[in-house]
Amino acid sequence: MTTTTPLDLTADLTTLTAAICDIRSVSGGERALADAVEAALRGHAHLEVLRDGDAVVARTHLGRASRVVVAGHIDTVPVTEEPANLPTRLEGSGDDAVLWGRGTVDMKGGVAVQLALAAALTEPGRDVTWVFYDHEEVEASLNGLGRIAREHPDWLAADFAVLCEPTDAGLEGGCNGTLRAEVRVAGVAAHSARAWTGVNAIHGAAPVLARLAAYEPASVEVDGLVYREGLNAVLIGGGVATNVVPDRCVVTVNYRFAPSRSVAEAEAHVRELFDGFEVVVTDAAAGARPGLDDPAAAEFAAAVLGVTGGAPAPKYGWTDVARFSELGVPAVNFGPGDPLLAHKDDERLPVRQLRLCHDALRAWLTA
Amino acid sequence: MTTTTPLDLTADLTTLTAAICDIRSVSGGERALADAVEAALRGHAHLEVLRDGDAVVARTHLGRASRVVVAGHIDTVPVTEEPANLPTRLEGSGDDAVLWGRGTVDMKGGVAVQLALAAALTEPGRDVTWVFYDHEEVEASLNGLGRIAREHPDWLAADFAVLCEPTDAGLEGGCNGTLRAEVRVAGVAAHSARAWTGVNAIHGAAPVLARLAAYEPASVEVDGLVYREGLNAVLIGGGVATNVVPDRCVVTVNYRFAPSRSVAEAEAHVRELFDGFEVVVTDAAAGARPGLDDPAAAEFAAAVLGVTGGAPAPKYGWTDVARFSELGVPAVNFGPGDPLLAHKDDERLPVRQLRLCHDALRAWLTA
Repeated sequence: MTTTTPLDLTADLTTLTAAICDIRSVSGGERALADAVEAALRGHAHLEVLRDGDAVVARTHLGRASRVVVAGHIDTVPVTEEPANLPTRLEGSGDDAVLWGRGTVDMKGGVAVQLALAAALTEPGRDVTWVFYDHEEVEASLNGLGRIAREHPDWLAADFAVLCEPTDAGLEGGCNGTLRAEVRVAGVAAHSARAWTGVNAIHGAAPVLARLAAYEPASVEVDGLVYREGLNAVLIGGGVATNVVPDRCVVTVNYRFAPSRSVAEAEAHVRELFDGFEVVVTDAAAGARPGLDDPAAAEFAAAVLGVTGGAPAPKYGWTDVARFSELGVPAVNFGPGDPLLAHKDDERLPVRQLRLCHDALRAWLTA
Repeated sequence: MTTTTPLDLTADLTTLTAAICDIRSVSGGERALADAVEAALRGHAHLEVLRDGDAVVARTHLGRASRVVVAGHIDTVPVTEEPANLPTRLEGSGDDAVLWGRGTVDMKGGVAVQLALAAALTEPGRDVTWVFYDHEEVEASLNGLGRIAREHPDWLAADFAVLCEPTDAGLEGGCNGTLRAEVRVAGVAAHSARAWTGVNAIHGAAPVLARLAAYEPASVEVDGLVYREGLNAVLIGGGVATNVVPDRCVVTVNYRFAPSRSVAEAEAHVRELFDGFEVVVTDAAAGARPGLDDPAAAEFAAAVLGVTGGAPAPKYGWTDVARFSELGVPAVNFGPGDPLLAHKDDERLPVRQLRLCHDALRAWLTA
């Protein structure tokens, strides 16, 4: 039994967001918040509530013609202690108020919107599956949404999905894929006083950096949105001592590729660029097409446009929408908060975005 | 009082070398060996014995027309325990015998030759100052020869110096200088999913590596010996995480420059090569001219040639001959052992080189 104060899902959105943030839930420590979410949702007769580990799923069974998933993760990156970014604090008032604290942006503002609507919408126009999951901020193998997809794929069955990751209350479709590879250059070690007896691996990496510096990333239109790609060295390392000609230099590159490319195509592109060098792919994940040509997506885009005035934009970072994409469910990102403030110590949320997101989702779900 | 078995300076050179190696003297732990050396030398009436810390100096006062220094360090790099490279072991016999173990090459073989001659040459043709010093294998500020040069410069007064560092029993004149510098490239950090908002410092290092790869090191004739220079990246580092465009990349370069160049000239050369980049010199030491145009050096070279058949060659690595050079004393390297085996776990010495070095030094000192 948890001793956390029960969540009041009828409270105003700012109060609810603050309450959810103040229940700490750094990845791996989501139990108390998951318990609170589950308890708050179980009080509602229109919802079937399911639990898996520290993930909670609540869904309607109204026999509607379509079903949508609205999902968010309940974990956060670690809390800063000095200066503390918890408990939350509210600055300003009214429409200009800003809620400061860990999780306000990534992504308990979105979770608060989900919870308020899950409780309030007893008869939505579409059946809704509300998903609250754990372990998003840590290694992919622990991801709660991935676990549900593996163990209870039926819980995620839907025609369309909205992931409430922060997008500044704008609709961001799909996401770029991401691939990391090590470009390895070998040499022959030698004392640097007799360098001609060796082969310098760092010097050997000169063409690798030259190709990266000259690389012109593509912009690729997918389903009406333009995805900017990027190919960057993110790490470089070589050398063992200041009197040794190094026999090894490794350049780690990160390729962010448009969702129209497969992982295999992305890998081939990287291998072609670094032709002549050893290339070892260390991790890769496909992107997700925005799917805005899907009727459900188009209706959602229209609802968002009606409330926020914002047209769809591409999502560049990889998000869990790609997991829905893998399940064949078109998915978009839509949530309160500036994504550039995610994980920052001064994470903070303009509370007016809570209302915008709430109203847009409500308009769509009740249409 | 030390309890180490006294050194027998009349033993054959192989036995004496093994005895000196088996008294461990990793830098900072030279006390027992310094005590043994001091005790062994004090028994000889023709020598004045001086002590400073764990350095021992023994010198003749015969009123000869010239004085020479013959110097060696008594410390070693750390001993390998698995497999152990101490105690020493002798493989083979006669002229083909090889003495294995830490210090055999760098440089207790040379120290054994010094000790045997110091004891045996009661009436050398030149006055001789035998120097045995500590802390050569660690940071320069601790170097025992440097300490003596600062605190007792008169102990090192001489017309010529021989440093018994391993040279494969060949005469190696002077040494290249060495300069290390960091070439720093700045950028602007960004999430790698939105790389266009940043500036990649690793990509910015492409011209640095290109210039290094294209660099053609000079060969410079100094006093009749040709010194090969070298300019190498020895370390490279950049990046903080695999999803961040790095804002900093540092290439550490090591320039080995001919002894005809000053440190200031070497620095100017490196700054010119990396024009447009921040260059921070982290350490530098001038080389030493071979000084083979000096009459004492020429006589020594002739003596070595007569015994070993080997003509003088340049020394590429920086050695303590540069300290004599700074004091205005021409100096050369001459000692038993393959310098490429110094510091190696399988350090080993062909014992015939002990005899060659001994005989060449003896011929010169008794001429």
